[in-house]
Amino acid sequence: MGFSLLTDFYELTMMQGYFFSCPDQEGVFEMFFRRQPFDGGYTIFAGLGPLLEALLDLRFTGDDISYLESLKIFRKEFIDYLGNFLFRGDIYSVAEGTAVFPNEPLLRVHGNLMEAQLIESMVLNFINFQSLIATKSARICSVAAGRPVLEFGLRRAQGTSGALWAARAAFIGGASATSNTLAGKIYGIPVSGTMAHSWVMSYDTELEAFRTYADLYPDRCVLLVDTFDTLKSGIPNAITVFRKLMERNHSLMAVRIDSGDLEYLSKKARNILDENGLRDVKIFVSSDLDEWIMRQLIESGSPIDSWGVGTRLVTGWNDPALTGVYKIVASNDGSGYEPRIKISNQAEKITNPGVKNTMRFYNEKGQALADLIYLEDEAEDLARMIAQKEPIRFNHPATDYAKFTLKEYSTAAPQLAPVMLKGKIAGDAPSLQIIKERRQREVDSLDDTFKRLLNPHVYKISLSSRLKDLKTEMIRSIKAKYD
Amino acid sequence: MGFSLLTDFYELTMMQGYFFSCPDQEGVFEMFFRRQPFDGGYTIFAGLGPLLEALLDLRFTGDDISYLESLKIFRKEFIDYLGNFLFRGDIYSVAEGTAVFPNEPLLRVHGNLMEAQLIESMVLNFINFQSLIATKSARICSVAAGRPVLEFGLRRAQGTSGALWAARAAFIGGASATSNTLAGKIYGIPVSGTMAHSWVMSYDTELEAFRTYADLYPDRCVLLVDTFDTLKSGIPNAITVFRKLMERNHSLMAVRIDSGDLEYLSKKARNILDENGLRDVKIFVSSDLDEWIMRQLIESGSPIDSWGVGTRLVTGWNDPALTGVYKIVASNDGSGYEPRIKISNQAEKITNPGVKNTMRFYNEKGQALADLIYLEDEAEDLARMIAQKEPIRFNHPATDYAKFTLKEYSTAAPQLAPVMLKGKIAGDAPSLQIIKERRQREVDSLDDTFKRLLNPHVYKISLSSRLKDLKTEMIRSIKAKYD
Repeated sequence: MGFSLLTDFYELTMMQGYFFSCPDQEGVFEMFFRRQPFDGGYTIFAGLGPLLEALLDLRFTGDDISYLESLKIFRKEFIDYLGNFLFRGDIYSVAEGTAVFPNEPLLRVHGNLMEAQLIESMVLNFINFQSLIATKSARICSVAAGRPVLEFGLRRAQGTSGALWAARAAFIGGASATSNTLAGKIYGIPVSGTMAHSWVMSYDTELEAFRTYADLYPDRCVLLVDTFDTLKSGIPNAITVFRKLMERNHSLMAVRIDSGDLEYLSKKARNILDENGLRDVKIFVSSDLDEWIMRQLIESGSPIDSWGVGTRLVTGWNDPALTGVYKIVASNDGSGYEPRIKISNQAEKITNPGVKNTMRFYNEKGQALADLIYLEDEAEDLARMIAQKEPIRFNHPATDYAKFTLKEYSTAAPQLAPVMLKGKIAGDAPSLQIIKERRQREVDSLDDTFKRLLNPHVYKISLSSRLKDLKTEMIRSIKAKYD
Repeated sequence: MGFSLLTDFYELTMMQGYFFSCPDQEGVFEMFFRRQPFDGGYTIFAGLGPLLEALLDLRFTGDDISYLESLKIFRKEFIDYLGNFLFRGDIYSVAEGTAVFPNEPLLRVHGNLMEAQLIESMVLNFINFQSLIATKSARICSVAAGRPVLEFGLRRAQGTSGALWAARAAFIGGASATSNTLAGKIYGIPVSGTMAHSWVMSYDTELEAFRTYADLYPDRCVLLVDTFDTLKSGIPNAITVFRKLMERNHSLMAVRIDSGDLEYLSKKARNILDENGLRDVKIFVSSDLDEWIMRQLIESGSPIDSWGVGTRLVTGWNDPALTGVYKIVASNDGSGYEPRIKISNQAEKITNPGVKNTMRFYNEKGQALADLIYLEDEAEDLARMIAQKEPIRFNHPATDYAKFTLKEYSTAAPQLAPVMLKGKIAGDAPSLQIIKERRQREVDSLDDTFKRLLNPHVYKISLSSRLKDLKTEMIRSIKAKYD
């Protein structure tokens, strides 16, 4: 499917406006978000790889053009322009798997105003959702504390790409495998799955269903034990079948419990299995799990070895959207880039003007200390100061009195780097495994206080003095016109 | 994209199991849900059209087969079967746009156990999400009370199909238009859109931005007034531009407010516009709207003429998944269909056995009175009783003492009808407009008490006496084995 029309209609009406009023104007747009999802302490950036691939392929087919013509709102010259359209802009982005924070530029698009405007909806559609789910997955997997998490939300996901992207993002966030076979094929994620209740129900008895399954899949045999009665029927029948498998030297057996009280049932099941000498049989649970329920089960000492998480992982559940936005920060009509700002009536919606990057500072142990948003214009000066370990001034994004000077730091790293230049992907795309490992390092680099599920410590995001001054002056100058 | 691998991996492992243990067994599966989304009183069924189209096209490509072979879990005979696979089953379904209720069969699949099992994940992925959003849209549009609702959730939707299906479902639920251009092309939904803040920000002044836009789009001109200051800058500049348009005899102008307190700003904006003789200029608002915020704005007398609803419509927001399930209800090994039941430890998860339909009873005004789930075996008897206006016994799905007899009714209609026979679509696909009109009639047929946003009256879903007896006897017989 081509993505050229996967755009809000106003992007096209604005493009036509630019085409006739300022066709050569260039702009820089930044994507950022204002609020951490899940009231959490960090967000995992994801979705860049699929976005860049889609941009490579962005063109208007004959069908697309005919459709646009049929709307009788676009003039011929503009339609002709669209017929020859290719995205030829530059994109700077943080890497997938990076921990990111509110108001930081996550992705920056430099290009003709028209092309940069066209891709707004796509950028947001790709990045918002995948970052949301990578973040949810990281929260869930942090609670699972090393016990495998299997993503199996396909049936409850919001659409087919909702399911595919969720599988990809869940893997980045720490899930071990997916139930989604197509995600396995497309992204190379390990696929996993056992049996449904319908398997058990389509045989005359549960025991027959288990035996038939074990005959076919004697290794890694997982039996679903809650079709009739977990403790009275499912577990005893599973034990019968597992004993036969053990006689034949098969191993890696497990029972899956998919309903009822998971603490009660997992403890009882564990006891019965142990009493029958089946200490090696694992217990796999599922049923409306999320990080909160999992934490409670772990704290209560439930003997659970692995987790199947579906609906609440792939939809975000208690926070189903990362509300990222895409705003113009500079434009150039030929005489050089001018910073742009949005003010509005809500203070928190005032944007940070100018072409920016974020510098993350670390201590000698590699722990992240604080982030500084700065203007690309001052990159060289900042790099020199950092090389000389000079103290750096950090300014609060909104208030004047909240400032501090960072004196002790070991290293610092800019967060945005070029990923697409003149419409071509810059460098090699990292594998999903590499991205997953980066996510792990990023989460490890954050102090535990930022990783609390509830009421986390707020990581400091500040403005450089030059950026803060620019913002203050622009607000003053605009407000002077009507105040 | 082919959908054959858009399936939970366990469907394929189970299929292989059926292939080697009972390749000729047939099954009937039903999709239903247990809980109304949004704590609402009804759900709008949606997603059937796209599902049937995808099923028509369901085959395993050479690539798909190579991928499955690479997993080294499937044997050659089964792989060969997949290589020739086509869905050849029958599907019975309620019509898109129908109001449906918990535990009713919404869609029934009859086929070989393998093909019916394969499509489980797809059926649920397509129907759960689209029904969720059609329902959310119906709630939102019922509050809007005739004032147009524009869906524009693309940037926050969960993936590309999450956005496309949401646009389709939102339209069924009552939205007038979408911002999603691709949804406009694919589904023929009207597209709509105005300008972003970036339009205003890319000109030197707001007034210049408005003028440029109005020159290009003098009719139906909508100006976004909150980039700098809604009341001090946006509205005055819009008035300047609208006056010029009126001099040139253009009409249908509007301002859009996208931030701040919408009650305060809409009232103030209305006053300023009216004082300037611009009574015909409409006010369009957006900014994290949902049915609750819209109701509050309407109750407070906010002069709002149309609504842009994004994130909270297309994700479901406070309830991001309809948790529909797909369960086997009968199987046939050659000696006739035998009903199947799932019991489990949670009473509400006990399924209703047998091949079923739902009869909806109406009074003489066309108001829905109650629904009766019955066995297809008793369809003729029931039709005869209804034709003779005989009293009908309604039994509570779980408890024995809650029963009633419906004596007064005017008409009754079975809810499921064949939509696919032997893998071919039965009848013509209804247009989206027809589906939308059906949704309106369906909502109109429900008493207002079922449509309360909060704490609605619970519509009665009962079992026929024959179905109730079958269920009771099957539970007794299965429990007798281990109790």
